[in-house]
Order: sequence, then structure tokens, then C-alpha cells
Amino acid sequence: MIRTLRRYLPILDWGRHYDGAAFGSDALAALIVTIMLIPQSLAYALLAGLPAEAGIYASILPIVLYAIFGTSRSLAVGPVAVVSLLTATAVGQVAEQGAAGYATAALTLAGLSGMFLILLGVFRLGILANFLSHPVIAGFITASGILIATSQLRHILGIEAGGHTLIEMVASIGANLGQIHLATLAIGVPATAFLFWVRRGMKPALLKLGVSATLADVMTKAGPVLAVVVTTLAVWVLSLDRVGVAVIGDVPQGLPPFTLPGLSPDLVRQLLVPAILISIIGFVESVSVAQTLAAKRRERIDPDQELIGLGAANLGAAFTGGYPVTGGFSRSVVNDDAGAATPAAGAYTAVGLAFAAAFLTPLIYYLPNATLAATIIVAVLGLVDLSILRRTWAYSRGDFAAVAITILLTLGAGVEIGVATGVVVSLLLHLVKTSKPHVAEVGLVPGTHHFRNVDRHAVETDPGLLTLRIDESLYFVNARFLETLVQDRVTEGCALRHVVLMCPAVNDIDFSALESLEAVNLRLTKLGIGFHLSEVKGPVMDRLNTTHFLDALNGRVFLSQYDAWTALAGTSSRSAAE
Amino acid sequence: MIRTLRRYLPILDWGRHYDGAAFGSDALAALIVTIMLIPQSLAYALLAGLPAEAGIYASILPIVLYAIFGTSRSLAVGPVAVVSLLTATAVGQVAEQGAAGYATAALTLAGLSGMFLILLGVFRLGILANFLSHPVIAGFITASGILIATSQLRHILGIEAGGHTLIEMVASIGANLGQIHLATLAIGVPATAFLFWVRRGMKPALLKLGVSATLADVMTKAGPVLAVVVTTLAVWVLSLDRVGVAVIGDVPQGLPPFTLPGLSPDLVRQLLVPAILISIIGFVESVSVAQTLAAKRRERIDPDQELIGLGAANLGAAFTGGYPVTGGFSRSVVNDDAGAATPAAGAYTAVGLAFAAAFLTPLIYYLPNATLAATIIVAVLGLVDLSILRRTWAYSRGDFAAVAITILLTLGAGVEIGVATGVVVSLLLHLVKTSKPHVAEVGLVPGTHHFRNVDRHAVETDPGLLTLRIDESLYFVNARFLETLVQDRVTEGCALRHVVLMCPAVNDIDFSALESLEAVNLRLTKLGIGFHLSEVKGPVMDRLNTTHFLDALNGRVFLSQYDAWTALAGTSSRSAAE
Repeated sequence: MIRTLRRYLPILDWGRHYDGAAFGSDALAALIVTIMLIPQSLAYALLAGLPAEAGIYASILPIVLYAIFGTSRSLAVGPVAVVSLLTATAVGQVAEQGAAGYATAALTLAGLSGMFLILLGVFRLGILANFLSHPVIAGFITASGILIATSQLRHILGIEAGGHTLIEMVASIGANLGQIHLATLAIGVPATAFLFWVRRGMKPALLKLGVSATLADVMTKAGPVLAVVVTTLAVWVLSLDRVGVAVIGDVPQGLPPFTLPGLSPDLVRQLLVPAILISIIGFVESVSVAQTLAAKRRERIDPDQELIGLGAANLGAAFTGGYPVTGGFSRSVVNDDAGAATPAAGAYTAVGLAFAAAFLTPLIYYLPNATLAATIIVAVLGLVDLSILRRTWAYSRGDFAAVAITILLTLGAGVEIGVATGVVVSLLLHLVKTSKPHVAEVGLVPGTHHFRNVDRHAVETDPGLLTLRIDESLYFVNARFLETLVQDRVTEGCALRHVVLMCPAVNDIDFSALESLEAVNLRLTKLGIGFHLSEVKGPVMDRLNTTHFLDALNGRVFLSQYDAWTALAGTSSRSAAE
Repeated sequence: MIRTLRRYLPILDWGRHYDGAAFGSDALAALIVTIMLIPQSLAYALLAGLPAEAGIYASILPIVLYAIFGTSRSLAVGPVAVVSLLTATAVGQVAEQGAAGYATAALTLAGLSGMFLILLGVFRLGILANFLSHPVIAGFITASGILIATSQLRHILGIEAGGHTLIEMVASIGANLGQIHLATLAIGVPATAFLFWVRRGMKPALLKLGVSATLADVMTKAGPVLAVVVTTLAVWVLSLDRVGVAVIGDVPQGLPPFTLPGLSPDLVRQLLVPAILISIIGFVESVSVAQTLAAKRRERIDPDQELIGLGAANLGAAFTGGYPVTGGFSRSVVNDDAGAATPAAGAYTAVGLAFAAAFLTPLIYYLPNATLAATIIVAVLGLVDLSILRRTWAYSRGDFAAVAITILLTLGAGVEIGVATGVVVSLLLHLVKTSKPHVAEVGLVPGTHHFRNVDRHAVETDPGLLTLRIDESLYFVNARFLETLVQDRVTEGCALRHVVLMCPAVNDIDFSALESLEAVNLRLTKLGIGFHLSEVKGPVMDRLNTTHFLDALNGRVFLSQYDAWTALAGTSSRSAAE
């Protein structure tokens, strides 16, 4: 009972040992993360097409719930770029941005995603996330980064523009280039340049100036906040909002509201598939981050419990005015670097953000949208990694095809089609690859007990004996291949008396493959050819022993291929001599 | 050039050696098959919801085209039960049975199916058919047999009834039981009983009476024709059609007409998916039959060329008033038993059927539908094999799940959903199975160079050395599993100095798995633990050599696990002793 409770509530584990030192580390980490999260949360909410405060709300209760149910000590949960983009796409299909139904649909999306994640966790189905291959994830994140950065250009330029695919966006920006708003541009371009410099050049520059490494680190992390403060002050002092620079404006002051996601059957039906997609992508991103951080400290995370932690966080977002959340890379790394010792650091961050929501929102009235867009652009361009194309090309054409299709379709047809097609293509490629397994005809290396490919080595063979080594598990996708292969080889050679399948790399034989082996046995029996197996693995042999196949087999099962050679090469030469 | 031509036109191969003896065998086989095909073709056309003559037409040009393009010497192409049912389902969704558009839609279905098969053949994509596992096929055919037999009951009972699922059919028959037509029943029940006896008991009975085996065989095959003749005569003599016994009635007299399939974009879009499904199921059925027959004679068939042969046959059906066709089991076996020596036997069958279409159709005016229904019921109940449930259950729960889901959904939700879900479930089960590969921690069998599972054998181990043997190819679905596994093991043991992955059963490492290995290497390096591989296969090693992984690897790649043991078990004991 206690065990079960502790499985679902990891807080019972680390909470018992919580002390003052841990509190100190956690509180400091929380302060740093809070400062960093405010602009990021606002920015991602705008990316998702929601009011800025939704980003803050989505960072409060979800963090607390993850701290209770999650297993990673340093994962920071909240709005992230890719999930915000997916939210904008999904919700944009059911409601107009800015319309009353839009925010409600975002809550529904978070609610559905939360329930789906919890279901997966309870049934321990975290392996579903494995169906996303690395190339598909890399391609999807790269393409999403490009899409997101492009979508933010309009805020930097101060123009109206739209579109869901890269071509649409670029065309829309091109068509509206005439309306560039210079005052906005004068904020957006320097802000972007400054933030790029903060990311790439600030730390080395500070170190050169003799600033200590720790201080340089903190200042680098505070860079985005500096951009926010400076540009906000500039708009306020120069009254730039009166000349048309878009600003955040009134953000409601107060704690997150209690909200109810829309649950009309129509809405649920329309958002169900996007919710599943967001859940899986969010989970994969989050688990990758959590695993990387845990590895550094020889800790471990439990992927199935992570599903429950993320599910609870999303349910929390659904009831407190947020939208879908997950564990984000940059915020988690900051949290970890800042010394977060336990999930309680997340809870303190939540307190900080709640304080900000309750008291600080009037201060960001003059915060220009261009600055937030700059924050997003710099963050997501860090995700773009086109080298994946080169690297997969060098390693395997199949993996390259999966990443190329994912990138092209994500950019050209939208995020949902892109990632879904990528998953299907990578699965099909894998199946096609295993459908024609590597099969080598082997012979005896003279003077040894070893058998090697006749095409690669000088080996002894016997005209009456054909030995095929199968380098793949046998299952329905390649079962017919095996049948055809043996059939083809048998029609070739008339002196053939015995066929041996050498199975040291056969890890499984499924029912289809068993039936194929039975068919091969039947056909060879009619032709008077012996059919044998050698080096069958223990678990496979156990399984075969439950069937009649071994009784029906006209030949034998040899423990080693050398035993088969000794028994059969002899007899067939004798028979040939008769 | 000639080679290419001969690849696409197998007739150029066997045609050159054609002689009088082959002609004799072929002509006799053709006569027997023709007699058998007439009632069968009429019956399947009615099952497909088409006029009876469509079945004859679908057996003429398609047979000739298959004889030209196909590779099997004894496959007989024409309407078959399962494809007829699929046709009725697909066409029934776009047109009312009996309406003008119905026959046109059936032509379109045959045309699309023909083009799809030819495309697959030209691109040599016959492997697609492998995605249908044996349990899914067996389950689908069994469920289809039950559906078809149930759908024919109304003809035996002489009532109106409909429905697409088993429950609907049974309910509809139950609701109309009051209208049973006794004269029809008086024909249908004895006809069914007689045909069952022909199939099961006739041959032994004839042999007991002293009839020679060959004659008994021929008489058994002529049994269905006898039923047709007797019941037709009975209706004619007793004028049973006047009291309401449904008969075939007027069948147009003449050669197959030239027809054009409907090609409106709407129709094509609606029929595309069913056409693909029919093509693949038809292909799988046909190839299984062809392979079984070819094996008996040490001949071989070329699955990709079979696609072209079947595609041509279906295109032929589309332009001559037919509907989708494939290689049928019963007609092919008869053809083979009757001694067909070359595909020319098929062409002679076509001549026989053309003669029947041109001159004999008036003779079947009084043929009762109940007799045809009896023919179908007896034929399809031969396909029903529920033992597949028991056999898969004994062998593997995953295969059982696939067959059970396929049967239940085919019966309960329709043929298309049934087979599609079956395919998806069997693929998912395979992926889930490989997502948690078998991994054994191994140790040295004392006094040997062999390594075995520490859980099963008394072996030597070293506290500083962890050796994991992975019994599966590494690819994206199980890449994360590997990462987690190593991570978990590393967090357990503090004395650990070296981790070795033993890879004799790893047939492939894809890009995702490579990145996972890189991540493992990075993490272990940070922890000061050596990471090594052993017994990596040649092709896998070749692939790894194209990457930087081996440079980055903090440990070594050992040719044999014993080398690894010698090198590492020593050093780590020494280190432990230091």
C-alpha cells in the first residue's frame, strides 16, 4: 500500500529527507528561474495565440503538480516553444484567435492531453514514445524552430502577416513588407541582436573583462530580463505605444483563475488527435531532458511515472487558465545549473511566479511585443540543427529519408502532417529493412569449428549440404522471404540432400514464420531433402518445443553448426558416392 | 532487351517449348476446369451483387492475360469468394445494388486494382504484401467465410434479408424468418446437403463401390455440376419459378462486352482505398496458392511478376464487363490436379467459358439461386478454420491477439475495418515486442571461453565489469530502452569500472540507436566508467566505421567477449585491489 503510494507520489521519497541546506539551494534556483521564466512565459503564450498571462498561469499550478508527481529533480515544467506552436495549430483549426472559444479550446487541449498522459502512465505505456525516432524528432524540432522564428518576424517588423506553412508565411510577409513599422523595427532588431550576443558572445566578453565565471553566468542568464527592462522603459519614456509600437498592454493582475475546459463532444472530437500528438511530443522532449539531467548525477527517472507527472501538470493547466505544458530544455538546464536540489525548487518558482502574477503585471504594460518576439526567435533558432541531414546521410539513407521527409512536410504542409508522416515513414522503412534480412550461405573455415560466409571467405562446402545463416528474427514481414529463398535455392541445385538453417541471430520466431518453416519442411520432405536447424537460441527453442513443428521436422536440431556439418556433410558425400 | 521482355512476358519462356503432349494435358485440364467454373463464377458474381454473367466475363480475358504475364503454371485466375465479398462491400458504399452505377463501380474497382498491382510490380514492391501476417490472413479468411455463408442463407430460405456485419445479418434473417419460402427451401437444403456430401463422403463411397480412383476424382469434381443440372431441371419440369422460386433468368447470350470503367474523380477517390485493400488481399491469396503449387514441382514463381500478371488480369476484367479477380485456391488446385502443364491451359479454359457465354446461357434460365447459394456456402465453409485461435493461443499471445481482433472486427464491424485493424495491431505488437529486447547479463563459464546468462548458469563474474548481451537489433523503438537500462545498472553498482555490450545478435544499429550509444558513452565517460563493445558483426562494424562514434568511444571494441574479459576483468580487479 505504502509502496504503491510511493510509486505514484515520489514526493514521499525525497520529502522525508528535506532539510535547510536543500531549502537554500532550491530557493536560490527558484529565484533565478522565476526571473528567466517571466518573459519566456509571456512570449510563448503569444506564440500559442493566447493572452500573455496564460503563459504565466501555465507555469504555476503545473510546476507544483509536477513537483508532487514527477521523478526528475531538476525538470522545469511550463510552456515550451514547440508545444506552443502545436497548440496554435490545433486550436486555430477550431476557433479564431482572439475569439471567446480560443482560450477555452486551449484549456480543453491541455485537459485532454493531461488525461491521455495519465492513462498512458497508469497502463505503463511510455514505450509508445519510442515510436518517434531520433531523426524524426530532430527533423521536427528543426523545422518547428524555423517555422516559429519565421512566424515571429511580423512582430519584429511591426506588420500583419499570417500563414501556417513556411511558404505561406514568407509570402504573407513579402506581401506586407511595405507596411514595415520603423519604430517597432528600431526596437525589434537591436533586441534580437542583443539577445544573440547574450547567448553567444556575452560570457566570453565578461570573462575577458575580469568578471568571475559565476557572476558572468548569472549575468548571461539575466540578459533577456535586461532586454525586457530596457525596451519597456524605452517605450514608456518615449511614449512609443502612441506611435503604433505594439505592447503587451493590460495584463490582469491576480492569481491564476479557476477555469473549466470546454467539453462539448464536437470540440473533444476535433482536439483529440492533436492532444495525443502534443502529449507524445511533449513527453519525448521532457523525458530526453530529464534523462540527460539525471544522468549527470547518477540519478534515474521513471518514464511511466513521468507520464503521470506531466499529465497532472497539464490537468492543472486546464483548470487554471493555462494551456498544454511540458518539461522544457532551457528552463530545466537553468534550474539545474542554479543548483536546484529537489523538486521543491519548482514549487518555489511557482510561488515566485504567483507573486509576479499578483503584483508585477502592471509593470509590463509597456513591454513591446517585438522584444518578446526577439526572445522567441533567439530561443528557437538554438533548436535548429540542419546538420542532422548531413549526419544521417552519411550513416544511413533510410534515416536520412525519414528526417528529410519530416522537415519538408513540417515546413511545407504543417506540423501535424510533418510529424505524423515522419513516424509512419520511419516505421515502414524499418519494416521494409527487416523484410529482406541478410542471409549468408556459410561453409567451414578449414581446420576450425567456425563457419563463415562463402562469398567472403575461403571455406569448405559440400554439394549435398546447403547451410544458410539468417541474420534477423523471423516474423511475418520476412516469413515469405525465407520461403521463397529456400525454394529458389532448392530449384537450383539437384545434388542437394540437406538444408540447414543456422539461427544464432534469430531472436524470435513468430507464428507466421513458424508456419513458413512448416511449409518449407513439407516441401523439402516431398523432394526428399532433409531440413535441419542449428544453434537455435534457448528462448526460441522453448517456444518451438510447445508446437508439433519439431515432431514434423524431417531432419534434426543441432546444438552447433559443427555438429550439423559432422553429421550431414559426411552422410551426403557417402550418399553421393553410392 | 530480350531479357527485359522475357522478364515481363514469361510466355516467351514456356511458349518456345510448347508441343503436342503439353497441348493434350492442357486441353483436358481446361475442359474439367471450365465445367467447374461455370456454376462457381455465376455464384460469386451474385455474391458480389452483380448480374450472374459478370462472373463468366471476369473469367475469360483475365485468364488469357494472366497466361501471358503470370509466372505460375497452374494458377487459375477469376472471381473468388473473399474478393467478391470485398467487392460487394466496397461497391455497396457508392451505389445501390442493381442500380446502373453498381456494375460500373465494380469495373472501376477492377481497373484501379489492376493499375495498383501493376505499379507495385513495376516498382518491385511485392514485399508490401508481407505486412499481412499469417494470423491476420487466417482470421480474415475465416471470418469472411462465416460472413459469406450467413449472407447466402437468405437464398436457401427464399427470404429477403440484408446487413453487413454478422449481427445485422442474423437479426435481419431472424426478423424475416416468417416469410420462409418452402419450395425454395426444398431445393436449397437438399442441394447444400448433397454438396457437403460430395465434398466429404462421395469419394470414399465411390471407392467402396469399386469405382477407380481417377473416375471417383472426376465424379467428385463434377458433383456441383450435377446439383446444377438436377435442380435446374426440377424447376423447369415443375415450373417452380411460377410459384416464386428465384432463378437466374435471362442471361445475355454472347461474348464478353467491351466496357469502360467509370473514372469520375469522386468515384475514384471513394474506391481507391478499397481497391488497394482488394489488391493486396487478392495478391496474398494468389501468391500463397501459386507458391504451394510451384513447390510441388520444384518450380519457382516471381512475386513481383505475379503482381503484373494479376494487374493485367484485373485491367482485363475492367474492360470486359467483369469485376476484381485473383488466383483462386479451389480452381487452381483442380487445374493442377487435372494435369495443366502450362499457362496455356488457362487460355483454353477461357475459350471454353467464351463458348459457354456465347451459346449455353439459355440453358441456365431455370437455375435456382438457391443452388448457387448452396455452392457458395459449401465452398466458403471449407475456408473457415477456427483452430487458428487455439493454435496461436498455444504459441504466442501476441499472434492470438492479432487473429482474435481480426475475426471479431471482421464479423462485427465489416471486412475492411477487420483486416485493416488486424494489420495495424500485428505491426504494433511486433514493434512493442522489439521495444523491450531480451538483454542478459553474462559471465564466463569456468574453464571455457563461453559466456552465459548469469541468471541461468553458474558463471564467473567480476564486480568491476558488467557485460550485457543484447538479443535484438538496436533501432529507434528500443534505443531509449537501452539507454535507460545501462543508466539503471550504473546507478546500482558503485564498484563498476567497465560496461561491455556484447553484440553477436545485433544485426543492425540505426541512427537513433547510434545516438543512444553516444549518449551512453558520454554519460559513462563523465562517471569514469569504461564503455566497450564485443563481437560486433561485420556489416554493423562497417557502418560504425563511417561515424565518429568509435573515436569518441572511451573504451574498445573487442573481437570476442573472451578478449574483453581477459583485458578488463584483470585490470578492474587490479584497480579494485589498489
